[in-house]
Amino acid sequence: MIVNADSLAARLAADRARVDACLAALFEGRTAPGVRLEAAMRHGLLVGGKRLRPVLVYLAGRALGATDERLDAPAAAVELIHAYSLVHDDLPAMDDDDLRRGQPTVHRAFDEATAILAGDALQTLAFELLARAEHPRLPALMLTLAEAAGRDGMVGGQALDLAAVGGHPDVAALATMHAHKTGALIRAAVRMGALTAVAEDDPRVAALDAYARAIGLAFQIHDDVLDVTGDADTLGKASGADAARNKPTYPSLLGLDGARARAGELVDEAVAALAPLGDTHAPLAELARYMIERDH
Amino acid sequence: MIVNADSLAARLAADRARVDACLAALFEGRTAPGVRLEAAMRHGLLVGGKRLRPVLVYLAGRALGATDERLDAPAAAVELIHAYSLVHDDLPAMDDDDLRRGQPTVHRAFDEATAILAGDALQTLAFELLARAEHPRLPALMLTLAEAAGRDGMVGGQALDLAAVGGHPDVAALATMHAHKTGALIRAAVRMGALTAVAEDDPRVAALDAYARAIGLAFQIHDDVLDVTGDADTLGKASGADAARNKPTYPSLLGLDGARARAGELVDEAVAALAPLGDTHAPLAELARYMIERDH
Repeated sequence: MIVNADSLAARLAADRARVDACLAALFEGRTAPGVRLEAAMRHGLLVGGKRLRPVLVYLAGRALGATDERLDAPAAAVELIHAYSLVHDDLPAMDDDDLRRGQPTVHRAFDEATAILAGDALQTLAFELLARAEHPRLPALMLTLAEAAGRDGMVGGQALDLAAVGGHPDVAALATMHAHKTGALIRAAVRMGALTAVAEDDPRVAALDAYARAIGLAFQIHDDVLDVTGDADTLGKASGADAARNKPTYPSLLGLDGARARAGELVDEAVAALAPLGDTHAPLAELARYMIERDH
Repeated sequence: MIVNADSLAARLAADRARVDACLAALFEGRTAPGVRLEAAMRHGLLVGGKRLRPVLVYLAGRALGATDERLDAPAAAVELIHAYSLVHDDLPAMDDDDLRRGQPTVHRAFDEATAILAGDALQTLAFELLARAEHPRLPALMLTLAEAAGRDGMVGGQALDLAAVGGHPDVAALATMHAHKTGALIRAAVRMGALTAVAEDDPRVAALDAYARAIGLAFQIHDDVLDVTGDADTLGKASGADAARNKPTYPSLLGLDGARARAGELVDEAVAALAPLGDTHAPLAELARYMIERDH
């Protein structure tokens, strides 16, 4: 399948704009107790971002018949969790990054204490937003997001990542770390989209989960590849950062060609997993291809 | 009213033991991806603590007829939020505390990155636990907790607190800060107990909220008093810490006697607010009295 990049890009841009409007609305007409906190939250949330996870919520939900209006809250909630994790990940005690999406990181633009609190409040806001959604499967949506974000998901993966620096994990250990650190939230995005439309025993929920699992890992492998081949201007952050930190990556374990080949296989698996969706699968398949062709 | 301290203490100890068992159960039979993360979470959550907020969930819920079993999840969830906030509050970029509840703080016992992640994961676990609770008013319970924890509640108050260091706030500004930083979660505890039993339009929910608002501030004033009059062994942390940091406090603004008098008035208000509860109000009234008589 050849991806029609122009048409896909236009549709991705529309979904990005949609979720960006939902996120920006969270800061309108506010009389916050902490003005600086609020500004730091906006900085961490609204400056740039591919909005991949919200796009996945929309695409998965639409494929099973959910309306865009119903998908807005889960889409925004998953992005809030992602944004909070980036704010904390960038902190001096963690990755100590100065630049994110081409802008100063939150602790550089504000200060460290404010960045900690802004990340904390972004996480809470994700659950607050979802709690307001008035959806019949709200407990399942909540649980999906919380499990993916917490100790058995994203934060657990960050802990594995910290433990791995300077160590010598093999490909399996690296895959486990990424399955938690980035994979869990990508799967949650797809599952939340699906559960907005149908109950969890619908077989298409499992099909979409197999898709999400494969693209999550492909996405991470491609990120590692970009860290080697990309340039800082396009990436919006320093390239070569992984090597400089002696972080294990797919290219360092499989070689650049080996890593690219593995990402390609995973995308094939992801597209194959979509078969039970029938005709509605095309946008998700296109997105999977796009994810390993993007240059940032 | 004279508090029967022995009988109250025994009942508080029983509720503490009950919620401690719920919290400890969250860590049983686990094969966590991050063993160190899990240990840091346990340290932040399970080492000591008055468990005031869970006790309030139980007392408020029972007063309106909820069973203990139904109250366990909200009680544990509110304590998870409180514990996460302490872990982050103690960080070097925030209050930079070495000691909490007589033990090394999480970033001292582990490291700073692990403390950030442990706090993050404790917050997520609060919402995960609540999402599993299968309660008909789950969205309202979720929303109560999230609103109290986030930018309009506890985290907003911490941001005000950071901004106030070295400044010269008046009593009104100090009350606003505490109403967010500690008051919001205390009110949420009482409201979550109440909503476990009855719908939000029951007039006793509003009565309990007036109670919670008053004891929340009384609790904070008494904490400030203890920081001046207490000794480090009993408090489990350094006394005189507020003065050393040049933090504004009630004793510094009202004098020690003025602060004690204000706390006493607030407890009277709290007890008066309980009138609509009739006979079931006694344990809540006793707790209010106890809160300004405790020595730690």
